[in-house]
Amino acid sequence: MATAGKVIKCKAAVAWEPNKPLVIEEVEVAPPQANEIRFKVVATAVCHSDLYHLFESMPKDGFPAVLGHEAAGIVESVGPGVTEFQPGDKVIPIFLSQCKECRFCKSPKTNQSLVGAESRFTCKGKKVLQFAGTSTFSEYTVINQIAVAKIDPAAPLEKVCLIGCGICTGYGAAVNTAKVEPGSTCAVFGLGAVGLAAVMGCKAAGAKRIIAVDLNPDKAEKAKVLGATDFVNPKDHNKPIHEVLAGMTNGGVDYSVECVGNVEVMRSAFESCMPAWGVSVIVGWTELNDVAIRPTHLISGRTWKGSLFGGDKNMTIICPTLYSNFKLQLDEFITHNMTLDQVNDAIELMKHSKWYHFLVLFIY
Amino acid sequence: MATAGKVIKCKAAVAWEPNKPLVIEEVEVAPPQANEIRFKVVATAVCHSDLYHLFESMPKDGFPAVLGHEAAGIVESVGPGVTEFQPGDKVIPIFLSQCKECRFCKSPKTNQSLVGAESRFTCKGKKVLQFAGTSTFSEYTVINQIAVAKIDPAAPLEKVCLIGCGICTGYGAAVNTAKVEPGSTCAVFGLGAVGLAAVMGCKAAGAKRIIAVDLNPDKAEKAKVLGATDFVNPKDHNKPIHEVLAGMTNGGVDYSVECVGNVEVMRSAFESCMPAWGVSVIVGWTELNDVAIRPTHLISGRTWKGSLFGGDKNMTIICPTLYSNFKLQLDEFITHNMTLDQVNDAIELMKHSKWYHFLVLFIY
Ligand SMILES: NC(=O)c1ccc[n+]([C@@H]2O[C@H](COP(=O)([O-])OP(=O)(O)OC[C@H]3O[C@@H](n4cnc5c(N)ncnc54)[C@H](O)[C@@H]3O)[C@@H](O)[C@H]2O)c1
Ligand SMILES: NC(=O)c1ccc[n+]([C@@H]2O[C@H](COP(=O)([O-])OP(=O)(O)OC[C@H]3O[C@@H](n4cnc5c(N)ncnc54)[C@H](O)[C@@H]3O)[C@@H](O)[C@H]2O)c1
Ligand SMILES: [Zn+2]
Ligand SMILES: [Zn+2]
Ligand SMILES: [Zn+2]
Ligand SMILES: [Zn+2]
Repeated sequence: MATAGKVIKCKAAVAWEPNKPLVIEEVEVAPPQANEIRFKVVATAVCHSDLYHLFESMPKDGFPAVLGHEAAGIVESVGPGVTEFQPGDKVIPIFLSQCKECRFCKSPKTNQSLVGAESRFTCKGKKVLQFAGTSTFSEYTVINQIAVAKIDPAAPLEKVCLIGCGICTGYGAAVNTAKVEPGSTCAVFGLGAVGLAAVMGCKAAGAKRIIAVDLNPDKAEKAKVLGATDFVNPKDHNKPIHEVLAGMTNGGVDYSVECVGNVEVMRSAFESCMPAWGVSVIVGWTELNDVAIRPTHLISGRTWKGSLFGGDKNMTIICPTLYSNFKLQLDEFITHNMTLDQVNDAIELMKHSKWYHFLVLFIY
Repeated sequence: MATAGKVIKCKAAVAWEPNKPLVIEEVEVAPPQANEIRFKVVATAVCHSDLYHLFESMPKDGFPAVLGHEAAGIVESVGPGVTEFQPGDKVIPIFLSQCKECRFCKSPKTNQSLVGAESRFTCKGKKVLQFAGTSTFSEYTVINQIAVAKIDPAAPLEKVCLIGCGICTGYGAAVNTAKVEPGSTCAVFGLGAVGLAAVMGCKAAGAKRIIAVDLNPDKAEKAKVLGATDFVNPKDHNKPIHEVLAGMTNGGVDYSVECVGNVEVMRSAFESCMPAWGVSVIVGWTELNDVAIRPTHLISGRTWKGSLFGGDKNMTIICPTLYSNFKLQLDEFITHNMTLDQVNDAIELMKHSKWYHFLVLFIY
């Protein structure tokens, strides 16, 4: 391509400061260096983790940055040493990638790795940080080749972008981390993209009952389309939600998955599962508070786990199955199509959970 | 026996009130009713759970009671419907027994059951409660047949009594609940009978490194005899113990087991294990406080579990192996032999953790 080896000037949404709207700016994207790939972002979705960085954790040294990590695009150029990708390849960036060499990558027990990533963005003469190793709220972005998955050329980028975080995360939390068993009873707390994908995962694993829990009643219908058998709105009850669920399930669910990022909900999800054998998985993200439980609630027989990117390594576990088995259902996750210029509107929609808020921004 | 079918008057240590010394009293032990067994307690050990009932949880409706649950004895008589036991059989009472009929008993995932137990004790005209379904600080006690395991007639009762709680609990927590793998690194917090048995379990499971942690330096030697490779006293360090362990183990242990019953120690044990795959098991008992953690410390990949009676069902998993493989090592657990009259001294010894405090009271 004509742009290969050159700095690309393009549009990106820059988060200059925490708690402020993003600003559409012209940024400079340096050419990919050794083992890096530069690609054109065609579609990117908004995940609550983007909002968490901007409004909740607001790390002092985390700005200015280009947010966004749930995307799909087309390779523009590759740096030295990249042999398995070429311009024109369709790709999904992977925010939790594997170096394949460290002791984490060599262990089947984790999908963590000691990977670091450098930013190739500058704006108005200032270095702009990369977020989650991906930074997809930009027309172009540079990523290490290990953090990129090549996908079927026929894949619709404006849909499969969701696999890059929400879908893998929620689906994998149910299937890989909780290891939901056929015939079991499950509860999913929070029905954003992550929670709905967890519902899908519970269903795929053969759960016979899937109780979807959300404060927003509008989520009920979509959850049922994806496999939920019941919907519970905590606002409709005046007792603690774990008691409501215990009553519905003869003592508690076999598996619960927390997809909100709120420590009170984490505790409820934990307490909602069967004292003698329930497994509860935390997916929602927060570093702001501790979560507390009664020790005897573990001793009785519960297991508590967490899940990062659905426990998936390089999307090798979930991605192929998901795409072939569930591509039609990806449509269910898309409620709004907007442009990069509307990114702040998209963020507001998600923040206030007014509608289904897994919306896709078209950038191309 | 001459006493069969009659009320037996014998000596027992009665806990009349919380937080007070036990009182040696003459109690009346009614004959066993349907499916019950009355046996002569030959030896009983003191477990921290006895102290917990007396000094910490002090349940309003939990007194007067006969404490004690880690024992061995000889059947004196059996009630109607008991066919598998007869007078003279050597037995160990099981405080966590199985009815074999409820959905818990039918599940391989738990060793809980819906068993209840009634007391056959009276003292000075008052009903005295049974503790843990066993009440072994008495010369005689009545137990449901499902809560009794028959043992090898050659078994030395004054030693195998320890299998009735501490040994099964700690050993099983490592082997059944944590599922320690060969070659792994483990940490055991608290080196009472339970923690030392956990050390033994880690060793039996093939752990290559076992770090024993206790505030009492006198515990180091015994822990090493039973398999610990390192001893760490938190008092010798001025940084948090999870940081000390992370430094010793390149990031954290694979498995940690909490055998103290203190929520701060539970948190340390949890944080001491590898963020990406560590498994931490709570064995220590407290209902007084919540335990708090950072949610991201689970999301990174840790698993948190609890263990009740070592996850064992009816002592069928651990007991036979333990007795044949480890009978010599039972000696290591016995530091004091005392009489029932000295029960308050025994309790004081354990309370202040002045010496190894897994002492055996001879009753017979
Ligand atoms: N662990 C991981 O790898 C990973 C990956 C992606 C996202 N996340 C986290 O997962 C969480 C969900 O992400 P998302 O993009 O689906 O978010 P989202 O904002 O789209 O969805 C959250 C849902 O939770 C509901 N909710 C809020 N408070 C609730 C309560 N008290 N009880 C029940 N429901 C409640 C909201 O109505 C909303 O439907 C976030 O915390 C995000 O940071 C984690
Ligand atoms: N889950 C179960 O089924 C089960 C069964 C039996 C006992 N328990 C519980 O297990 C725990 C241990 O029982 P035990 O009889 O071995 O008790 P114990 O009192 O003999 O031993 C406790 C040990 O912990 C040490 N300790 C105290 N504070 C410490 C700290 N901050 N850091 C490190 N070490 C510390 C003490 O010095 C002592 O050596 C108790 O809480 C008991 O109630 C649970
Ligand atoms: Zn995300
Ligand atoms: Zn790696
Ligand atoms: Zn005990
Ligand atoms: Zn039962």
